[in-house]
Amino acid sequence: MTTMNTDQPAKTDTIEEKMKVSLDKSDFNEWYSNVVEQSNLTDKRYPIKGMNVWPAYGWKVMKNIDRLIGEELVSTGHEEVHFPLLISEEVFAKESEHIKGFDDEVYWVTHAGGEELDVKLLLRPTSETAMYPIFSLWVRSHTDLPLKTFQLVDTYRYDTKQTRAFTRVREIHFFEAHTCHADFEDAEKQIAEDLEIMERLGKKLCLPYLMLKRPDWDKFPGAFYSLAADTVMPNGKTLQIGTIHQYRDNFSKPYDIKYEDTAGEHKFAHQTTYGMSERLIGAIVGIYGDNKGVILPPAIAPYQVVLVPILVKKSKAEVSDSCQKLRDELISVGVSVHLDHRDIRPGSKFYDWELRGVPLRLELGPRDLERGEVTVVRRDTGERNVIKRETVKAAVVEILNDIQASLLKIGEQMLEDSINTVDAIDEAKGKTGVIRVGWCGEPDCDDQMCKLLEINMLGTPIIDEGYSGNCGQCGKPTTTVAYYAKSF
Amino acid sequence: MTTMNTDQPAKTDTIEEKMKVSLDKSDFNEWYSNVVEQSNLTDKRYPIKGMNVWPAYGWKVMKNIDRLIGEELVSTGHEEVHFPLLISEEVFAKESEHIKGFDDEVYWVTHAGGEELDVKLLLRPTSETAMYPIFSLWVRSHTDLPLKTFQLVDTYRYDTKQTRAFTRVREIHFFEAHTCHADFEDAEKQIAEDLEIMERLGKKLCLPYLMLKRPDWDKFPGAFYSLAADTVMPNGKTLQIGTIHQYRDNFSKPYDIKYEDTAGEHKFAHQTTYGMSERLIGAIVGIYGDNKGVILPPAIAPYQVVLVPILVKKSKAEVSDSCQKLRDELISVGVSVHLDHRDIRPGSKFYDWELRGVPLRLELGPRDLERGEVTVVRRDTGERNVIKRETVKAAVVEILNDIQASLLKIGEQMLEDSINTVDAIDEAKGKTGVIRVGWCGEPDCDDQMCKLLEINMLGTPIIDEGYSGNCGQCGKPTTTVAYYAKSF
Repeated sequence: MTTMNTDQPAKTDTIEEKMKVSLDKSDFNEWYSNVVEQSNLTDKRYPIKGMNVWPAYGWKVMKNIDRLIGEELVSTGHEEVHFPLLISEEVFAKESEHIKGFDDEVYWVTHAGGEELDVKLLLRPTSETAMYPIFSLWVRSHTDLPLKTFQLVDTYRYDTKQTRAFTRVREIHFFEAHTCHADFEDAEKQIAEDLEIMERLGKKLCLPYLMLKRPDWDKFPGAFYSLAADTVMPNGKTLQIGTIHQYRDNFSKPYDIKYEDTAGEHKFAHQTTYGMSERLIGAIVGIYGDNKGVILPPAIAPYQVVLVPILVKKSKAEVSDSCQKLRDELISVGVSVHLDHRDIRPGSKFYDWELRGVPLRLELGPRDLERGEVTVVRRDTGERNVIKRETVKAAVVEILNDIQASLLKIGEQMLEDSINTVDAIDEAKGKTGVIRVGWCGEPDCDDQMCKLLEINMLGTPIIDEGYSGNCGQCGKPTTTVAYYAKSF
Repeated sequence: MTTMNTDQPAKTDTIEEKMKVSLDKSDFNEWYSNVVEQSNLTDKRYPIKGMNVWPAYGWKVMKNIDRLIGEELVSTGHEEVHFPLLISEEVFAKESEHIKGFDDEVYWVTHAGGEELDVKLLLRPTSETAMYPIFSLWVRSHTDLPLKTFQLVDTYRYDTKQTRAFTRVREIHFFEAHTCHADFEDAEKQIAEDLEIMERLGKKLCLPYLMLKRPDWDKFPGAFYSLAADTVMPNGKTLQIGTIHQYRDNFSKPYDIKYEDTAGEHKFAHQTTYGMSERLIGAIVGIYGDNKGVILPPAIAPYQVVLVPILVKKSKAEVSDSCQKLRDELISVGVSVHLDHRDIRPGSKFYDWELRGVPLRLELGPRDLERGEVTVVRRDTGERNVIKRETVKAAVVEILNDIQASLLKIGEQMLEDSINTVDAIDEAKGKTGVIRVGWCGEPDCDDQMCKLLEINMLGTPIIDEGYSGNCGQCGKPTTTVAYYAKSF
């Protein structure tokens, strides 16, 4: 592959080489593995397992997502902070459940400058234990609460399962919000706010999901309870794309995060966290991509529009000038545009940008110029239209909005279609996707259902679904419904 | 200290507590150590030496600097990428000078998930050895060149000298540009561009500097030559705030970064790098701060203006409304404003924001309202003026520009004043600051001059200063002038 793994495709015509790697989504795993690299979202050739390079194009997508997350967090009163990567072993070990949960996954720094360190240091797998000793200094009085912070960092987990770009890596680009509150109720309000933020972000990213309360045995190490957003990939497996945890005072006690209330009494803070990662990209790629490549929602695409001049000798200068004018006009209404000047065939450009998932392609040639028109091609539907030059600004904005809305609608339908409601677990045999089934609450019934279909419980809905039926295993009447699936 | 280390000062009135720590710049080291923490730029209480926490206020300053750097780099055709933190020992060791230069300073990851790793991994001290194996895959043809990339990451150096916030830390927030070129000449053009970028950034950050070519024995490990920007702190010591390196093909050979030229011949690329770090903040704090706190240039201040309502019972609602209107007006012309609503005395607010270095304070009380006026106080000069309410938008923009310009002018004068030109090295005895002296080019003469005054050679100017004199040590006639100083 001679492609430069950067923001724009190689300057040379590499269509023939790229076409050697076929993209056939009917073999999902193979397709995914190829498409993330072919589209320049990632480069998996870095010589350490599970650690990939972000080429410019992929990093732009991630930064757009980071920006959307940051805007949501700042507008809800969170402040961005930045904590050190390294955590000392003794500080890490203070909350016993937490260390048990992560001990198998951490990278240890044992030496520096040729010497062995007195105290071993670990790379943050998540930042509770980096932040909370400092929170105990920041939080003193009830007037310091709520403390609402977040950071965007890379985290490190020595995951031994098979690695996969974005969805299972050992260096994980991560968003984590950490908050402190006066009491459990105020922390619960934070979780309600997090759910709203997640909903807004889900719409912007075109990512539909199930928001479920994880069963007790699968909650985050140290949490009082855990909520998780699961989306469903085309192969029927679920992918966890976000988590929200209520810690109660489980961490504030060992880390001594106390405040003086209005009556002068000292109390432990209640805490929450909210996290998401580069998995969001993996989900978007998986759900919307096709045999031509990835399809990016306009809200996160590095370029919302690519403009391809159709050049013939006679009118070259004219068409070039018009393209530049058109680009500037679109930029003036807030559309991000890339004008593809490369000296290669238009067909190769089409191929490249389809592979990379640019939502909308505009073509402008001598004939369009003569007729006062522009050709517009949607990446999601492939639909090709000719529009009047003078309406192009409004039309492009409208089409981008429509792509955003219609992708989300497709995704929501796919999620809905992937859910199989069954009365008894036997009925779920042979079905792919999510299994929705009554559960009496007995761990033993869960266990048997899981074993029968080699699935796991994702959890129970956080909104009352008005379920009334029977346990899928033992048949006892129940109003609890549980969701099961094979997970990534 | 009950202050919350975040974006805004604590909600409680902590002026009395803060005043306990005096800020007296005549003792520069003590003053610096206190002011960086009192102003909430950093929190040094993280339990690992040399690794500090970025509270929200400090992180906002850093992100503003990152943004300015990113804008410059993107506008000159660089693309932002993001490479892994970890580098394997064998890949790191390929360029022998480079590993010799950093071997004493790296952190080693030896274990993960309870097991010893087959290959030791190190935390990037800088990213040459992370990037260049991948560059060798990205660069194939002359059409892939120039390759111009940059990243903004944290780097890790186990520096054994005494740590100091921003200027000597072990986790360093870092900008690094890496480029590949067809030949030496094209790489030289890149260095010329870097010098221009540095000049523009220096103006935006109000940071004057000397741009010097480091002597051969002090160049970056692996470089063909190194240029460095040194600024001078008020105690007369220099601080290196930026470096630009010409690598020639020193790295492309061991890392096999080759391209096919137009004639079909395979050639090694020529490379350059350009780096800066959080030291920029340390320099700004050191140069401009005073006994009241730090002074931030408007271009990087988290808030350019703080608006303090002077509330008296009778007109509370009126003043509050007017303040909100004023804030919105200023935001509409691109000024970042913080309206300080806290229920504490105005004097405490003045104190807090002066400590944090907000360039301009606006006060609005009932009397101002009556007279149709606003009170304006400059942080840099302390000057207090009353301006007509209807002129406030234009006036604020103008004053901010003036602060920016006058800070830079002061800094430039300070730099100029700190340079002592001497004919013989003996004359430099007892002088603080930079020594500018003729040098015959003999390492031995340099050595003796360094020993005599316990100073180091910073280097020689990159622009011909038309010097004609004698070597400060041996007296031989020379047209080479060298700069010496004690360095941070």
